[in-house]
Amino acid sequence: MKNQIFSRVAAYGRARLVGTMPDKTKFISQDGTYPKGFLINGVSSGVKANAKKDLMVLFSPTPCNAAAVFTKNAFQAAPVQVSRSVLQENRGTGIHAVVVNSGCANAVTGEGGIQDAKAIAKTTDELTQPLRKLLNKKDSMSSTLLMSTGVIGQRLKLDKIQQGLGATFKDMGSSHQHWMNAAQAICTTDTFPKLVSKQVKVADRIYTIAGATKGAGMINPNLATLLGFFVTDAPIAPDAVQSILRHAVTNSFNSISIDGDTSTNDTIAFLANGAAGGSEITSTSLEYEPIRDAITGLAQDLAKLVVRDGEGATKFVTVRVHGAKSVEDATIVASTISNSALVKTAFFGEDANWGRILCAVGYSGATINPTATSVSFVPADGSKTLKLLVHGEPQNVNETRASEILAQEELTVDVDLGSGPFEKTNWTCDFSYDYVRINADYRS
Amino acid sequence: MKNQIFSRVAAYGRARLVGTMPDKTKFISQDGTYPKGFLINGVSSGVKANAKKDLMVLFSPTPCNAAAVFTKNAFQAAPVQVSRSVLQENRGTGIHAVVVNSGCANAVTGEGGIQDAKAIAKTTDELTQPLRKLLNKKDSMSSTLLMSTGVIGQRLKLDKIQQGLGATFKDMGSSHQHWMNAAQAICTTDTFPKLVSKQVKVADRIYTIAGATKGAGMINPNLATLLGFFVTDAPIAPDAVQSILRHAVTNSFNSISIDGDTSTNDTIAFLANGAAGGSEITSTSLEYEPIRDAITGLAQDLAKLVVRDGEGATKFVTVRVHGAKSVEDATIVASTISNSALVKTAFFGEDANWGRILCAVGYSGATINPTATSVSFVPADGSKTLKLLVHGEPQNVNETRASEILAQEELTVDVDLGSGPFEKTNWTCDFSYDYVRINADYRS
Repeated sequence: MKNQIFSRVAAYGRARLVGTMPDKTKFISQDGTYPKGFLINGVSSGVKANAKKDLMVLFSPTPCNAAAVFTKNAFQAAPVQVSRSVLQENRGTGIHAVVVNSGCANAVTGEGGIQDAKAIAKTTDELTQPLRKLLNKKDSMSSTLLMSTGVIGQRLKLDKIQQGLGATFKDMGSSHQHWMNAAQAICTTDTFPKLVSKQVKVADRIYTIAGATKGAGMINPNLATLLGFFVTDAPIAPDAVQSILRHAVTNSFNSISIDGDTSTNDTIAFLANGAAGGSEITSTSLEYEPIRDAITGLAQDLAKLVVRDGEGATKFVTVRVHGAKSVEDATIVASTISNSALVKTAFFGEDANWGRILCAVGYSGATINPTATSVSFVPADGSKTLKLLVHGEPQNVNETRASEILAQEELTVDVDLGSGPFEKTNWTCDFSYDYVRINADYRS
Repeated sequence: MKNQIFSRVAAYGRARLVGTMPDKTKFISQDGTYPKGFLINGVSSGVKANAKKDLMVLFSPTPCNAAAVFTKNAFQAAPVQVSRSVLQENRGTGIHAVVVNSGCANAVTGEGGIQDAKAIAKTTDELTQPLRKLLNKKDSMSSTLLMSTGVIGQRLKLDKIQQGLGATFKDMGSSHQHWMNAAQAICTTDTFPKLVSKQVKVADRIYTIAGATKGAGMINPNLATLLGFFVTDAPIAPDAVQSILRHAVTNSFNSISIDGDTSTNDTIAFLANGAAGGSEITSTSLEYEPIRDAITGLAQDLAKLVVRDGEGATKFVTVRVHGAKSVEDATIVASTISNSALVKTAFFGEDANWGRILCAVGYSGATINPTATSVSFVPADGSKTLKLLVHGEPQNVNETRASEILAQEELTVDVDLGSGPFEKTNWTCDFSYDYVRINADYRS
């Protein structure tokens, strides 16, 4: 099969020419300041055949308040099921570690897969036990969250992961290189590791936030998995951790589109260990909004990196929908435009095809007033907006100007529904030959 | 702009090599028997720049009972608005003509576009008046249905269409060539005209059915428009025409997926002129089900041709979902699989990637029991089914066998939800480099 597929894909495979993809190395973080009290590392455990890093552990000796959002797919991978129950048993407190592996998703693996996931959590709990500062837990209660990505329907190589965990712990640290090792270990078809850190001053105290994620475009060889985590040394109460995570994810990972599919393994986790000191931040604290917005900003930075590394992506497109009758309308219009294969191929073709955008607005299901709707392209370089449709009337578009705007790597599509005060911004990428190439090719 | 786009697309454009696409000329109907009492023709009116046929008229001297289904897009093209009101005013009777033009969609053209559409209907009414057998209509009432496809946001060249209507009427007829002229005139990026005819014997009387459609993949230069019509010489009552059309469309055009987008112009019309004689068929007649099923079969044949000509399509994939708790569940699962870019690229790659299929099942929103779900590939050549997942358990797949099945041009994906008696079958195609090429290129 491999050979046949190779020949089929190779026959079409000259589509991507060197130099046509934008340089993405500029998005790799070169340095960073990382939250206090977190140790991290990433290694090659041997789950991936090619000796690339495929296993990472994040560890906080201080117990963390934690929350996670999981895929809504009916087929939930074993690490999703196990992590959810760990968070429930612990009521969102007392979490010490996050383990992520790539190369095998441990999804659709039945009861055996659940046992594998539990064994990984147990090994991690045992490795961390001497270092943990809070030990008043029931024996059965794990303090480890798990994520996996890779092939589905295959069992994990448990022994390799367990050995890898030991190796990871031996060399943990908090340097930029340690964080980068972890960011690399969760990559699959990603063309660059996605790591972001920043500091925020809230009520005269400096808190640090950092996070990593992997790409969400369809992944060779198997599933489009979005995995990510962000952590802070701020002291945030459990329900504030929960609500900050929801707010951050709604406005970041849930506002991007690569190909519209969601996987068995999607997971985003947020941990706060309080190692920077200060009094606990609850959802009614004055510090709540500033820290929530800082964390949301970091989550957006991560999510935008995912779009920039969308499989085959050559354009970064911001879709801003405003003037909607409701948040729901703004959201469905933004996501329908962002997910339209026709709109996305038009961006690849650098085509001022507002008809396709309008079409997507029209079939989104939102309440639309055709004669109130306007569509513009806003160039990334700050030059003048190009109006395509104003209150339902097509404009006489200057094609040279359209061409200038569309030739840029970034672009904002502005849709004014003219019907109310609500808005939503999404980020998406174009749909290129390379998307097809990457996703047609298999198990290489 | 043209040059820049050309260079960008051309740089990627070597993707399609001669001989990699299946031969589609075999799907062109070489002969046919057509319903009595319908005259038809297609000409070049000059709306399309390249002198290709772009205007057709179907005419029945005997008044037809008629119905149409229209796009649900919030932006409804002028011909959609006008045709809907013609059908309403006539209460589904007294329709004599269908006019279809390609090259300009007459969409998002405001009040001027509506006036253009009405002018086309009026010219047609005037041309047909001497030939019509039923003239007891109010003067204001048109007996013409309209459809348009092509660029949106541009006004029609009304004078060319009006002259073209005259030319079309001069040479009308009912031969295979006349029907083929019409089928060609509605094409846009189609690689072959889509025309089907058949006869059905119901209660010892032979009725003839014929229809034509155009492709629904994204269309160069502008919109993914699905247009089609089918007609019969059977005497079918107005509400039976309505219910037969709904049944036929649900099980044909609404069961196919090219790219999931719906346009401003989508229209399917059904006309019955009764010219073959016999007593009127109502929804309670014994003849109702046989004629409904024959018409549905013809609509399916047309819809399948649309899938076969999906832009860049190299595979024809039947998605059969059964064992669902409800029709709604079966429908949403079938359409989610059919629309998944990941599933469609996997077929292009000839990849036995049941994980992607399962994923689509899982995020469809239907009620899913993971351990009751099974997935198989059913080869088109009648050889043995390949089981991929049985009651949620991944099977040890023979890759050589998978490769054999996937190398064929046709394939059925069988999904058993194991939860009930309901089923739904959809047809879809793969997602190739050529889809991107066709849709990134523009206005050529």
